[in-house]
Amino acid sequence: MAMGRIYLDWNATAPLSATARAAMLEAFELPGNASSVHGEGRAARAAVDRARRQVAQLVGAEPAHVTFVSGATEAANHVLTAEFRMGRAPLNVGRLYVSAIEHPAIREGGRFDPAQVTEVSVTRQGVIDLAALGSLLAGHDRNSGLPMLAVMLVNNETGIIQPVAEAAAIARLHGGLLVVDAVQAVGRIPVDINALDTDFLILSSHKIGGPKGVGALVARGEVLMPKPLVRGGGQEKGHRSGTENFHAIVGFGAAAEAASENIGERNAAIAVLRDRLEAGMRQAAPDVIVHGETVGRVANTCFFTLPGLKSETGQIAFDLEGIALSAGSACSSGKVGDSHVLTAMGHEPKLGALRISLGPDTADEDISRALAAFAKIAARRRLAGEAA
Amino acid sequence: MAMGRIYLDWNATAPLSATARAAMLEAFELPGNASSVHGEGRAARAAVDRARRQVAQLVGAEPAHVTFVSGATEAANHVLTAEFRMGRAPLNVGRLYVSAIEHPAIREGGRFDPAQVTEVSVTRQGVIDLAALGSLLAGHDRNSGLPMLAVMLVNNETGIIQPVAEAAAIARLHGGLLVVDAVQAVGRIPVDINALDTDFLILSSHKIGGPKGVGALVARGEVLMPKPLVRGGGQEKGHRSGTENFHAIVGFGAAAEAASENIGERNAAIAVLRDRLEAGMRQAAPDVIVHGETVGRVANTCFFTLPGLKSETGQIAFDLEGIALSAGSACSSGKVGDSHVLTAMGHEPKLGALRISLGPDTADEDISRALAAFAKIAARRRLAGEAA
Repeated sequence: MAMGRIYLDWNATAPLSATARAAMLEAFELPGNASSVHGEGRAARAAVDRARRQVAQLVGAEPAHVTFVSGATEAANHVLTAEFRMGRAPLNVGRLYVSAIEHPAIREGGRFDPAQVTEVSVTRQGVIDLAALGSLLAGHDRNSGLPMLAVMLVNNETGIIQPVAEAAAIARLHGGLLVVDAVQAVGRIPVDINALDTDFLILSSHKIGGPKGVGALVARGEVLMPKPLVRGGGQEKGHRSGTENFHAIVGFGAAAEAASENIGERNAAIAVLRDRLEAGMRQAAPDVIVHGETVGRVANTCFFTLPGLKSETGQIAFDLEGIALSAGSACSSGKVGDSHVLTAMGHEPKLGALRISLGPDTADEDISRALAAFAKIAARRRLAGEAA
Repeated sequence: MAMGRIYLDWNATAPLSATARAAMLEAFELPGNASSVHGEGRAARAAVDRARRQVAQLVGAEPAHVTFVSGATEAANHVLTAEFRMGRAPLNVGRLYVSAIEHPAIREGGRFDPAQVTEVSVTRQGVIDLAALGSLLAGHDRNSGLPMLAVMLVNNETGIIQPVAEAAAIARLHGGLLVVDAVQAVGRIPVDINALDTDFLILSSHKIGGPKGVGALVARGEVLMPKPLVRGGGQEKGHRSGTENFHAIVGFGAAAEAASENIGERNAAIAVLRDRLEAGMRQAAPDVIVHGETVGRVANTCFFTLPGLKSETGQIAFDLEGIALSAGSACSSGKVGDSHVLTAMGHEPKLGALRISLGPDTADEDISRALAAFAKIAARRRLAGEAA
């Protein structure tokens, strides 16, 4: 990229970290296939096993319960299915409940028929509505199979931390399975699969500084498992076939280890920058709305609306100023649509919003430059408003 | 690896090529998500687009018809499904026909119910039995939906080139869809999607020196497409959701471009080495059986049986001599089982076989060392036989 650009879109993807990059470069020297039995194969296998321990450690899980997949979207398609096995016995899930602010990979319902997916509303504050969840699960038809709840621990657009432990308790009360999308949570808050009382966690490598193209479905145990999505050679104990993506897996492992260290200190430093950013934004534009600021958020995310500035226009304006940020989530091939998260929170979707998300490499100077751009764009918006 | 090891298992995986490695290192410097609309996102997108052209070029396809997936196994699971669309109209496939020597990713039948999969026999020479294929397709029940044929262009164990154009003609005669697994063919023989008259081609990056974790499903057109396997954010025109694995895609593109250049010269040089290897093997052990030598093979593969030597024992013996080769395909987490290819060819499976597969980096000296190891192992086998 041109010199001097400021990357503030870490929730879309983190740049590859130096740690992950170094681990991958080392793995690049291993010629083998991790499924081969010769020395080269065993060396690749050992590297995969180490990464499995590193990823398990990040979420307090057993290494044997980590299934490497191609990313969080595949993990969602893998686990969101009506067809499970409890050991050798088939186990049927009758309905999937997802919150209205889930990532598209979850909201689409994976392998469930759309008619089997029910949306759970969220409050105006942007957190899953636990009362609504309780009512829905109380009304679940057990004859159709078990209920399954899929919720995110941290929302990708607002950064709001969701009451997952409470949702888990409600799911348990009704005999439901639980899937937690922890993609935006790991590295930002401590995540423990047992403390969350969830059956499955979904993780992505590239959101924590690892390479793209790899993620994990982490299970609480090894008895309850979904029907494999990708079948063939029987890798990953038959749960996910295909030659192990071991260069990327090694990078993911290194990133997971780094993400699990000094979570508190790292995020406290990021919070200082984010707070400075938001204070500066308010000074430049007192009418700015920061979504979710009254509830618990992770330290790195600022999701805001500048009245009178459409999010598409705002994104382009910041881009021209050298600042990379986004209007909601990065998907659908670059399409900028209404934010389903804002809509779910009861806001006027046409207002739109912009997301600034920081990372461990974000510097004080980056915030100064972002604030200068913000002030310029906010002022121009006022002038345009006065001219109209 | 320890100094002096000789890697002769290129059909299991090619070491990452210098070209692919350099392309990936350059991509590592791009921080963005290819679905983001800011400058960083557009730079990543441009890198993906370039790779799409490079991969399309390798097989004479349109770039727009290349869908990047996580590998050949995912591609097989994606395309092997009863549920297709022809534009907006649903199109149903009633039965999948696969040859008996397909890779496990194909033989498992992807999303088809096992009862919907029929195996087509192969001749003792190791080529698909076209007469048997014709009879099976003539008996296909059209009321169940269209027939689909999935065949490999080059077998991964024997290196035998399959009569795919003839199989395609038979499939067309019966109104069938055709899927060609070209994983072991590209870079070794010219592959053209139109000349093969196939609806779909399956490609893998890591068999041609690209990184693991990426492959492609290449379509002949864009009207006939399978129901997506991985749904979510709508990337790859909705055919394959999930953040684009752009570092790996870039490496795949670079490897595809290199693989498409000088195919004839590169493989002629490899053929010289393979011929020297096989001549030397026969000299050391006149009873050695080289499978498929009477039919057309790609230049790099030698699949052989040394009477009296079990393939597991042989693989370990070569490994101890510093030579990495394999006993059949690398999958099922390192399990060494009977070769389904040998069985399908009517050979005694307990005999087993070993595969030596060369690559563009294989040197004359490597062949000398492999032959020295072969002579040692063959002699030991004779001694053991005499002692018994």
